[in-house]
Amino acid sequence: MHFDHAGIATTDADELAELYTDLFGLERVHEEVFDGMRVVFLECGESYFELLEPIEGGTIAHYLEENGPGIHHLALATDDIEGALETVRDHDVTLVDEEPRPGAWGHSVAFLHPRDTGGILLELVEH
Amino acid sequence: MHFDHAGIATTDADELAELYTDLFGLERVHEEVFDGMRVVFLECGESYFELLEPIEGGTIAHYLEENGPGIHHLALATDDIEGALETVRDHDVTLVDEEPRPGAWGHSVAFLHPRDTGGILLELVEH
Repeated sequence: MHFDHAGIATTDADELAELYTDLFGLERVHEEVFDGMRVVFLECGESYFELLEPIEGGTIAHYLEENGPGIHHLALATDDIEGALETVRDHDVTLVDEEPRPGAWGHSVAFLHPRDTGGILLELVEH
Repeated sequence: MHFDHAGIATTDADELAELYTDLFGLERVHEEVFDGMRVVFLECGESYFELLEPIEGGTIAHYLEENGPGIHHLALATDDIEGALETVRDHDVTLVDEEPRPGAWGHSVAFLHPRDTGGILLELVEH
């Protein structure tokens, strides 16, 4: 697997995208409205920053209320998400998503619960 | 720039490294004692997970007390850290490190303050 993206909760995805472009030269490569959020992807080599701005209530809106803006999750890319989930199940790691579900950018995703992964909300993603 | 690593605060770097190796097939490529921490790097494509276990007091020990284990920072790789810092200064982003300093694995690093970067402790690293 390789590192796919860091999911970042923000109240203003456009402003943050502009800042990261100015500071680090990251290129905005995709954006969409998905699951009640404005989602902007910035390319960082083979990885991405996924900026998540809630436009209605939901997980990220709740996260922002509790924690303020910042890193929400980390994602690893796999070309076999079903097989990867089977490995996770074999290690008794709690799954947030028992089966892959549609994620942003047309990807297939599943989240692992932070209590079994060293305190990190980890996402598996198959492009 | 490209994504270099996620820095992860943990109370047991070996245990977490073993878990991530078992779950995701990540390979342990470097470890050392640095700045009062056991530091273990796991390779994820062109990026790394940097597992940070304090063995004495310090920033990560304090982070763990306040927040528990989890994602501590994100790092972007540059081949010109001095130039990158100049760009950051030009945008009035607060620097934790005014000048590059030695980091783990012999790298040169400088941190940006989360208050000006969307709530994320961002590290610039030159290998």
